[in-house]
Amino acid sequence: MNGAELILKTLAVNGVGACFANPGTSEMAFVDATSRVPELPIVLTLFEGVASGAADGYARISGKPASTLLHLGPGYANAMANLHNARRARSPIVNIVGDHATAHLALNAPLTSKLSEIADAYSVWSLNCSPHRISANTALAVTEAVERQGPATLIVPGDVAWAESAPTVSRSNPRPRRKIAEDAITAAARKVHSAGKQALLVLGSNALSAKGLAAAAGIAQVTNAQLSCSTFNACMPRDRGRPFLPKVPYFAEQAAAFFAPYESIVLIGVDYPVSFFAYPGKPSLLPPRPEAVIDLASPTDDAEAALIALAAALDTKPAAQSTAIEAIARGTGSLTAETAARSIARHLPENAIVSDESATSGTALVPLIPNMAPHETMDLMGGSIGQGLPVATGAAVAARDRKVVCLSGDGGAMYTIQALWTQARENLDVVTVIYANRAYRILSVEYQRILGQAPPAHSRALLEIDRPALDFVALARGMGIDSERADTAERFDELFAAAMNRRGRFLIEANLAT
Amino acid sequence: MNGAELILKTLAVNGVGACFANPGTSEMAFVDATSRVPELPIVLTLFEGVASGAADGYARISGKPASTLLHLGPGYANAMANLHNARRARSPIVNIVGDHATAHLALNAPLTSKLSEIADAYSVWSLNCSPHRISANTALAVTEAVERQGPATLIVPGDVAWAESAPTVSRSNPRPRRKIAEDAITAAARKVHSAGKQALLVLGSNALSAKGLAAAAGIAQVTNAQLSCSTFNACMPRDRGRPFLPKVPYFAEQAAAFFAPYESIVLIGVDYPVSFFAYPGKPSLLPPRPEAVIDLASPTDDAEAALIALAAALDTKPAAQSTAIEAIARGTGSLTAETAARSIARHLPENAIVSDESATSGTALVPLIPNMAPHETMDLMGGSIGQGLPVATGAAVAARDRKVVCLSGDGGAMYTIQALWTQARENLDVVTVIYANRAYRILSVEYQRILGQAPPAHSRALLEIDRPALDFVALARGMGIDSERADTAERFDELFAAAMNRRGRFLIEANLAT
Repeated sequence: MNGAELILKTLAVNGVGACFANPGTSEMAFVDATSRVPELPIVLTLFEGVASGAADGYARISGKPASTLLHLGPGYANAMANLHNARRARSPIVNIVGDHATAHLALNAPLTSKLSEIADAYSVWSLNCSPHRISANTALAVTEAVERQGPATLIVPGDVAWAESAPTVSRSNPRPRRKIAEDAITAAARKVHSAGKQALLVLGSNALSAKGLAAAAGIAQVTNAQLSCSTFNACMPRDRGRPFLPKVPYFAEQAAAFFAPYESIVLIGVDYPVSFFAYPGKPSLLPPRPEAVIDLASPTDDAEAALIALAAALDTKPAAQSTAIEAIARGTGSLTAETAARSIARHLPENAIVSDESATSGTALVPLIPNMAPHETMDLMGGSIGQGLPVATGAAVAARDRKVVCLSGDGGAMYTIQALWTQARENLDVVTVIYANRAYRILSVEYQRILGQAPPAHSRALLEIDRPALDFVALARGMGIDSERADTAERFDELFAAAMNRRGRFLIEANLAT
Repeated sequence: MNGAELILKTLAVNGVGACFANPGTSEMAFVDATSRVPELPIVLTLFEGVASGAADGYARISGKPASTLLHLGPGYANAMANLHNARRARSPIVNIVGDHATAHLALNAPLTSKLSEIADAYSVWSLNCSPHRISANTALAVTEAVERQGPATLIVPGDVAWAESAPTVSRSNPRPRRKIAEDAITAAARKVHSAGKQALLVLGSNALSAKGLAAAAGIAQVTNAQLSCSTFNACMPRDRGRPFLPKVPYFAEQAAAFFAPYESIVLIGVDYPVSFFAYPGKPSLLPPRPEAVIDLASPTDDAEAALIALAAALDTKPAAQSTAIEAIARGTGSLTAETAARSIARHLPENAIVSDESATSGTALVPLIPNMAPHETMDLMGGSIGQGLPVATGAAVAARDRKVVCLSGDGGAMYTIQALWTQARENLDVVTVIYANRAYRILSVEYQRILGQAPPAHSRALLEIDRPALDFVALARGMGIDSERADTAERFDELFAAAMNRRGRFLIEANLAT
């Protein structure tokens, strides 16, 4: 058995569910070995940022680690932006990056670059695979990806991949998430109890599970504490029977106002709230009174257990399930973010998965969520746009029996538009909605916030993408995806409803009247 | 004047010719400042790999440094693969990378990553811009990019960009290329003289100029030395009046055979020849007898001057210009790499610029080059595919009065296909030919070389991109580029000839009968 086959087998034995690949010459031993390791499905991508984003989506939905197969430093570099997002999503990913054979590296051949340095900077762990410990190093990569909750990178020189190796497969052994100490739970419970409706719970990460949300509902019922969640969540279940958690607002001044009323702010599975960007003369730390903040569990801790223990300490009972919902009226007339949101809210089927990178257009969906069918939503976690389509692709590989809906801005979609081809190749059930407002709209908003005026023409040339208008119907068809354009609310409703009622890939360009 | 405006002004004053941008919130002060620095043209791209590749193409053709404007670590990460190629092309580029404001960095906001580490690993120089030396640091970045011949990266925290600064603009001061000592020239001249037709000159980098090639022709005439050039060249002038230089072959065993006959191999503007990849049991160092190699001038040295001095030491006269050319017959019947090459060779206009990332399909053009109109060709320098379309885009910005032709494989085109949109937006005169063989054909060749057999079905699934077939006509139209498909040699000839005879962007999908 050669090194490449041993690595693929070790990934499969240790529960890695799929490999998203864009190999080259230095990975040829892996290309050959795939035929002997059918238990690890390999999915081809046309660009490495699709591979890393898909691995992220796969991990978020399957709960299993995913892997990538990448070609030297530049291949890893192309994957990095979505690895950054995956690290912020705390998705366990093992990157297998082929490198030049050991003796070849010193010769500075054209494809040589500082792979070890960039791998270390953009992964939670990285290692050059030893020819003498191939399976042990691979199992360790799985351990580190799961334990540190992010991308672990194993660099595999060509000679390690092609050399014959002993076929003994090692096992990974990740430690479980850190448990929160009982006295911290007790102290937090006292604060929540005494603050009453001036208590705010901010939930995130693994606290956002069915059990976690049930516990949170119980706490709210007994103590009148308010519930909320992070601005961005890797995977947020939304169910009529669970409490609706408002998000901490994105913009700093709105977030500060959101936190201001509370005497006790308990963080469970979230980092200390800071603004996304800094602005001249404005604070980056969001809660106006830091002394109100109780940092109970970080996102890598066992936040779900901490939340359940907090509920127990407050002597809560399972909260009554609210199932009353209101019908959502169909939008009519102009197609806007608001009328499009109505259609999505009306027709999204139960158990669907939403990959949301809709930026400014997506906020219209928020007030409708309590009346939508139960579903899960995956947000853009690291702020590097170009995650939405790849994450949807990986989620659809992880859950071939569920409908995946990708909501994307037009600007964001163009970073990794190649994901559509992999959706077609794998016959995935992904429906993509492109909110086409012909602009990086969020940047115009930010311009106005920072400079106090709407951008003048010369600056708009860097913020608007209307010349030429992108034709997403043509782009989708060019990659094997059926597609239609909607110019009215009625047409969008019709297209979206039809796409929800059949299996199969589809793209709708929502040509917004802005 | 704020920091952002001062940086843009400093770039312009120091001869930086254009800025290829994909900005975000942290670069908003730059977006605002562009209106006050019209002397630095800003070109918007939809993906950062297009920006870095276009900067490379601009620098190669204009002879001036280019710049990019990128958004934090992930924006730089997306640019890295083509920065790797630009470094191998020795193109001077100044990357301006916005970063979080200084005080914000420590808070680990979602877009925070190890930017300094990746900037240093993939640039020839990098620096965090000091708020007290904004123009001096920017001028230094230009100096370093020119002197070290590659991408220099200046990281600009938000607060440095938006703060008021003294408007004094600093000057860059790069040292000229290193001159080769006279005794080294004399020694090389003696070797070339005594070896006669067993001498081989291998030219690359700045030795491939009009003057350099004239000197080489003179040397060949007087000494019977053979002439050749690197396998990949940043910018290779091809002129009926200059000698045709065969390239060092790509595959290691062919390159070894190429070097074998020579007693003296003089490297002028090229690194020591090594194979692109390593292969089991094969040597990576290509010349079979290392003692035959004379390393006269490296690619960063003043190789052109060394070549001219060598010619003088050998007492050459200007070589007679050969102008006899043969007409190239039109191909007929099936559209293949060979018949397509005939059309390109027949119709490419004088003074055209070719961006060549045609991989396996491009070799068919080589034997026709001596009979083509004078033109310049830019090769893929770092081996990271996805350079061709962006480099063509930047070259067309640099030379708006010249025809640019991009020859690309279908696999390679999909890495940075977003370049087409910038070509449309800027109304550039680029004609793109996509050699659609529905495969990463080079990888099938490599598979066969390494594993000794054609790839089986399961491995072919990672090497072929035929399911679904990409429709490049649709993709091009989706980004505002007129496009047609050619299925026969006659149709390709007609489309290519027409595209050469009018100004304006166009894409031809050459649907190869493989």
